[in-house]
Amino acid sequence: MSAPAAAAADLASIVGERNVRTGAALRPYLSDATEARGLAGSAELAVLPGSAEEVAAVVAWCYERGVPIVPRGGGTGFAGGCVPLGGEVVVSLERLRRARSLDPTLWRGELEAGLTTREVQRLARESGLWFPPDPGAAEQSQLGGNIATNAGGPHAFKYGVTRAWVTGVEAVVAPGELIRVGGPLRKDVAGYDLLGLLVGSEGTLGIVTSAWLRFIPPPEAALPVVSFHADPRSGCEAIEAALASGVVPAALEYLDAGTLSAAAGSFPGEAPSGAFMVIAEADGAADEARAGRDALVGAVRDSALSVHAPDSPAEVAALWAWREGVSIAVTAKRGGKLSEDIVVPLDRLADAIEGTAAIGARVGVETCSWGHAGDGNLHSTLMVDPADPAELRRAEAACDELFALAIELGGSISGEHGLGLVKSGHLRKQWPPRAVELHEAVKEAFDPRGLFNPRKKRP
Amino acid sequence: MSAPAAAAADLASIVGERNVRTGAALRPYLSDATEARGLAGSAELAVLPGSAEEVAAVVAWCYERGVPIVPRGGGTGFAGGCVPLGGEVVVSLERLRRARSLDPTLWRGELEAGLTTREVQRLARESGLWFPPDPGAAEQSQLGGNIATNAGGPHAFKYGVTRAWVTGVEAVVAPGELIRVGGPLRKDVAGYDLLGLLVGSEGTLGIVTSAWLRFIPPPEAALPVVSFHADPRSGCEAIEAALASGVVPAALEYLDAGTLSAAAGSFPGEAPSGAFMVIAEADGAADEARAGRDALVGAVRDSALSVHAPDSPAEVAALWAWREGVSIAVTAKRGGKLSEDIVVPLDRLADAIEGTAAIGARVGVETCSWGHAGDGNLHSTLMVDPADPAELRRAEAACDELFALAIELGGSISGEHGLGLVKSGHLRKQWPPRAVELHEAVKEAFDPRGLFNPRKKRP
Repeated sequence: MSAPAAAAADLASIVGERNVRTGAALRPYLSDATEARGLAGSAELAVLPGSAEEVAAVVAWCYERGVPIVPRGGGTGFAGGCVPLGGEVVVSLERLRRARSLDPTLWRGELEAGLTTREVQRLARESGLWFPPDPGAAEQSQLGGNIATNAGGPHAFKYGVTRAWVTGVEAVVAPGELIRVGGPLRKDVAGYDLLGLLVGSEGTLGIVTSAWLRFIPPPEAALPVVSFHADPRSGCEAIEAALASGVVPAALEYLDAGTLSAAAGSFPGEAPSGAFMVIAEADGAADEARAGRDALVGAVRDSALSVHAPDSPAEVAALWAWREGVSIAVTAKRGGKLSEDIVVPLDRLADAIEGTAAIGARVGVETCSWGHAGDGNLHSTLMVDPADPAELRRAEAACDELFALAIELGGSISGEHGLGLVKSGHLRKQWPPRAVELHEAVKEAFDPRGLFNPRKKRP
Repeated sequence: MSAPAAAAADLASIVGERNVRTGAALRPYLSDATEARGLAGSAELAVLPGSAEEVAAVVAWCYERGVPIVPRGGGTGFAGGCVPLGGEVVVSLERLRRARSLDPTLWRGELEAGLTTREVQRLARESGLWFPPDPGAAEQSQLGGNIATNAGGPHAFKYGVTRAWVTGVEAVVAPGELIRVGGPLRKDVAGYDLLGLLVGSEGTLGIVTSAWLRFIPPPEAALPVVSFHADPRSGCEAIEAALASGVVPAALEYLDAGTLSAAAGSFPGEAPSGAFMVIAEADGAADEARAGRDALVGAVRDSALSVHAPDSPAEVAALWAWREGVSIAVTAKRGGKLSEDIVVPLDRLADAIEGTAAIGARVGVETCSWGHAGDGNLHSTLMVDPADPAELRRAEAACDELFALAIELGGSISGEHGLGLVKSGHLRKQWPPRAVELHEAVKEAFDPRGLFNPRKKRP
């Protein structure tokens, strides 16, 4: 029996034969959204454990034998965080789909990692509650992946990223042990923040199998204001004016002219060609949302070419559904894209938007950018033909320049995608050497054999 | 020259002679709020660096020589986290008091660790903004101490604890190096969450010298509803009813009968004797706060003896000023107290309140409890005469039982005070052994010589 075949047989004894994937059945477990930039993974084996205990047994089997492990959620990441590089066992969480508990009156639940983002949102809604994190690809992305990347989304501006909504996790850590940190507790400072370490660790410190989430009642109404501006500078003026309005916007987004042109076809309304778009949303009780909306209209109007404020729930839903499709529309334009997630201090947003365009012009690749303006978080994007290797190489080089730009502007190379494979090696340009050493020491503390998601999230 | 004298001379060359404290001048640097339970510290030397660079130089001096360090903020902690045990150099941050930057239009600022909580709140207010964390002793407690304990307060229920408002820190870590993690950035997932590790680490991983904070515009109005109930069970019914009302309360507090009786003298209103008090606050735009207040009144009324809803800003301010004084009023009752900060899942709150009383009855020490009901965070308190060593011993034993109770109810031994000295050694009862190992490994990674705040926050 070959080594992979022997491994498959061993692991089948843990997860059951039907839950081991090899050969052609393995294909869906080898890539994520970085496929659109030509990143292809390689592995000989994926397993689909049916319980947290099975995940622990798989990890124990791997850890004992020095076999590396790649945890996998919905495979919608933009950093290659779940792409195996050859030799790993892929551990897919897709069968861990139980709501272990759901307490509507206590605003909380314990949900397993393999539930999709949409299912988590739906479970909350059916309880009369709301789970605010809203990263893209909600139908496919999974709770475990959201936690692994500390996912954000448009409404993170007011409501915070995934970390803010996770009060505890169950996780498998080296050498294959199931631990619980936190729980159905809204406060806990007893130990160091291991929970915060696991969130955003991209499967390099352990595998989250379930999480205690907190929810809140949804705002009664959410009313977005869409404004169109002549250029990034006047758009950024509107963004700062929205902050000065006294309203705490629920979301504060932008799309530059290139993004808007890629996605304009399906925009539910009139989008002036060549314009820069800002979306500022007010939420709360119906009256408050309306008053906030009016204040935001007043704030952005001065620098706007036109303002559009959808009023009915159907129009509002259509706007956000369109917004969620922007990433796909941009991909469609040339067949592929390299889309990053740099962060800058808000007062450098216009510089980052213009800098993105300048980098694209320099390397000869078409760019666009959009994102979570209020959080200074840009999806700076290079649009490419994935069949053109020379263009792909130029675009990869441009990404390195993007990371350098973010750092130069006092920002971060990643706001919500994580380092994965794509940005591994760039952290040491952002952090001082001693902080990088501490990053490494944390990894060593959790994963002394370096088997959890190797080559990912490396400084 | 004696060893302490030689050390004083060396350190004076870093911080200046006038910023070294010895002998009688050292006394204010030896204790915190645990003095009321008889905890007295001991040290021969405190230094007051005037800049982050001086803090780094002091730490480097200590680290090279194996001299332990106790960082100190305002000294208002309840866990002995800043109490030296003999042989340490106390490093007080009180001279680091600059607002390095303040950007009202960008809702952010970089403030040094030695500013008091009240000063931070005032700086935000003067910028038209709000810094929501509101731990007690705001006149005395310092930003650095708030960060070291990840302090909460009544409004943490809606707005989160200190961690939620810190986007970056500058800190001195071993062996005496100044690092920056995060910054004026609202999102950052580039590296492991070292920021989250430092927050709440009680000076055992490093010394925070300044922090980037985020602020928000304050709610236009905040309207509390005070209800009085016959017993803890009916009070907890009101708390759950407040959650079911659809309002997200800004604060959701309780005071049991013993607490209320200790503090009733200064209560701005009528407090029925022997009652259990609940405070639920609605905030937002004026209309929304009023509607929320009405909904909360409706929710708590059914289980209440009476309801009191102060309406004017002056009355509301008086209520919260009184609430902030509760801890002192309870101390005053017998001259001393042991006040803990256990956390339980919200559905176990009544059990924890009754359990606190039962423990007190068993050991023969008068108890009371109050706290952040919505967060399940209780200040379970034993009222003692500090001059009675036998009673103090009984009360200490009772605290151990309180920690066991919290763990038995699925909770945590600390929600906002931290482990400090008082709870050191109890974490291993709460966490699984592997998580405790990871806690230890994190400490080892940051502080290989174990010189940062020894014997504090030990599992």
